[in-house]
Amino acid sequence: MPKRNSPCVAFQGERGAYSEIAACRFFGNSIELLPCESFDLVFKSVESQKADSGIVPIENSQAGCIHQNYDLLLKHRLRIVGELNLRVEHNLIGHPGVALNSIRMVFSHPQALMQCQGNTAKLKGVKIVAAYDTAGSVKKIKEERLLNAAAIASELAARTYGMKILKKGIQDNPENFTRFLVLRKTQTPPADANKTSLVFSLKNVPGALFRSLSAFALRDIDLYKIESRPLHGKPWEYFFYIDFAGNPKEPNCRSALAHLGEIATFLKVLGSYPRDARKL
Amino acid sequence: MPKRNSPCVAFQGERGAYSEIAACRFFGNSIELLPCESFDLVFKSVESQKADSGIVPIENSQAGCIHQNYDLLLKHRLRIVGELNLRVEHNLIGHPGVALNSIRMVFSHPQALMQCQGNTAKLKGVKIVAAYDTAGSVKKIKEERLLNAAAIASELAARTYGMKILKKGIQDNPENFTRFLVLRKTQTPPADANKTSLVFSLKNVPGALFRSLSAFALRDIDLYKIESRPLHGKPWEYFFYIDFAGNPKEPNCRSALAHLGEIATFLKVLGSYPRDARKL
Repeated sequence: MPKRNSPCVAFQGERGAYSEIAACRFFGNSIELLPCESFDLVFKSVESQKADSGIVPIENSQAGCIHQNYDLLLKHRLRIVGELNLRVEHNLIGHPGVALNSIRMVFSHPQALMQCQGNTAKLKGVKIVAAYDTAGSVKKIKEERLLNAAAIASELAARTYGMKILKKGIQDNPENFTRFLVLRKTQTPPADANKTSLVFSLKNVPGALFRSLSAFALRDIDLYKIESRPLHGKPWEYFFYIDFAGNPKEPNCRSALAHLGEIATFLKVLGSYPRDARKL
Repeated sequence: MPKRNSPCVAFQGERGAYSEIAACRFFGNSIELLPCESFDLVFKSVESQKADSGIVPIENSQAGCIHQNYDLLLKHRLRIVGELNLRVEHNLIGHPGVALNSIRMVFSHPQALMQCQGNTAKLKGVKIVAAYDTAGSVKKIKEERLLNAAAIASELAARTYGMKILKKGIQDNPENFTRFLVLRKTQTPPADANKTSLVFSLKNVPGALFRSLSAFALRDIDLYKIESRPLHGKPWEYFFYIDFAGNPKEPNCRSALAHLGEIATFLKVLGSYPRDARKL
C-alpha cells in the first residue's frame, strides 16, 4: 500500500455527503477523503489500493437495506472491518438570503425525498425533483444559481457549499439512522471483533433455511439480522445475509460456521468487526 | 361497492407503466384503469372503493424488494388475492425520426436506470437523469419536445405516447422479473389459494427467529421467501415477512399459524392466493 501521512477513505457522493460525516465520525478528522461517483467505484478504489478504506451505507432504519452494497460485498474481495450507526438529519437548504416561501422546487436523492415526504407535502406549490445525490443537489442549486430551489441534504453539505439551512430536521421520523460499513483489503479482523457478517445460499428444499439457522440457535449464538437477496439470473432463488454475535476465533462460532458449511451450497464470511451498539 | 361494467384497477405511475401491463396480464384487457401518483394512493383507492382492485410491484429479481409496499401492506386493511410474475423488458425510447447517436440525455426511474447501467454507459456523451417514473419520462420528453433526449420504459409506454423504440431490451440482465401483488378489500381468499403471506415481529432474544421458523419446518411447510424490515421508530428491531406454501384452511397451516402466534409479539396474515409458478 502506498505510504500516506493520513489514511485515505473512499465514499460515494459529493463532498458533504452523509457518508463523509460517517467517515469523519469513524476515523476522526485527520483523513484524506476520496469522493466516488458510485458505490462500485468505492469498492474498486479500496481494491486497487487507491484508498486505504471505504465506507458505504448498508441499511437505513426507515428505508431498509441498500441492496446494491450487499451485491458488491459478494462481488469484491474486501472485508468489513467496522460499522457505524449515524443519526441522519435532513435539512432543507437554499441560497443565503432566500426565504422559505419563495421556494418552488426541491431537489434530492429519492431516498431522502421519501424520508421527508410528509413535511415537503406541506410546502405549497412546490415541485419535488429526484436527483442522484443529496449533497450533489446542494452543489447543483448553487452552481446553477437556482434561487427558487432548495435541496434536502446534511448540515455539512450546507457548510461545504456556503449555503443556508432554511428548515432544520425535515425528516418525517426523528428516529432515522443509517448503518455504515467500513471496508478494507485485509484478511485479519480487528482484535476486538464481536460481530460477524456472512452470506450463503441453500438448496431450494423445504426446511433448508430452518436447518441453516439451527447452526446458530443450537449454540445460543444471537442473530442480529437476516436479509434475503434474489440470485441474479436465477429468479426467485436467494442469497441469505446474516449478522451474528461473535467472531470465528471463538470455538462455538467456528463450529457454527463449519455446521452451516455442511448445509449451504455457498458460504462466504464478509468480515468480523466490533459492533456499534450506540443508537446515538 | 359501486356497480361497474368492468372492474377498475388502481396502479402507480402514468399510463404505459409496467404496472399497467401487469394489470392487463392479470385481469385481461376489459378493465378500467386508475393511474395513481403514489403507491399510498393505490392502497387508498382500493380502501375507499374508488377502485375494485389494486396492483403493486413487491419484488424485482435484480433490485430486490420494493420496501415501501411491504410497509403499506402493514398499514392498510387490504388483502393480497393474487400475484403475477412479469418479465421486464426496458427499451430506449425517443421521438420518431430521431437517431440513436443524437441522444444526449436519458431519463428514467432510478431503479430502471440501475438495471440498464452497463448498456447506457456504452452510449457516449450521454447524461443520465433520474426521474420519478419510467412511462412518465416518455411523456415528459414528448410533451417538452426534448428531441435529443430518450427515456427508458416499456414498449407499451412507447405505443401509448406515439414514440419510437430506439433500442429494444437494454436491461443488462435479460433475466429481469418483477413480482406484482393484486390487492382487494375482502377477507375471503380465492378458492384456489395455495400460497400465504404474513408479517410478524419477535422478542429480541437469541434463537427467536429459529423458533418462529420451526412452526413451518416441523410441519414440512415450504417457505418461499423471508424478508426483514426495520421497525419504524425502533432502530434495529425488525418485522419479518414470510411467504409459505399452503393456505390457512389446511389444518397443518392453521396449526403453524397458531404455533407462530404463541412465539410472535405481533402477527398479521396479509392474504392467501394462487401462486404464480411461471417465471415468465
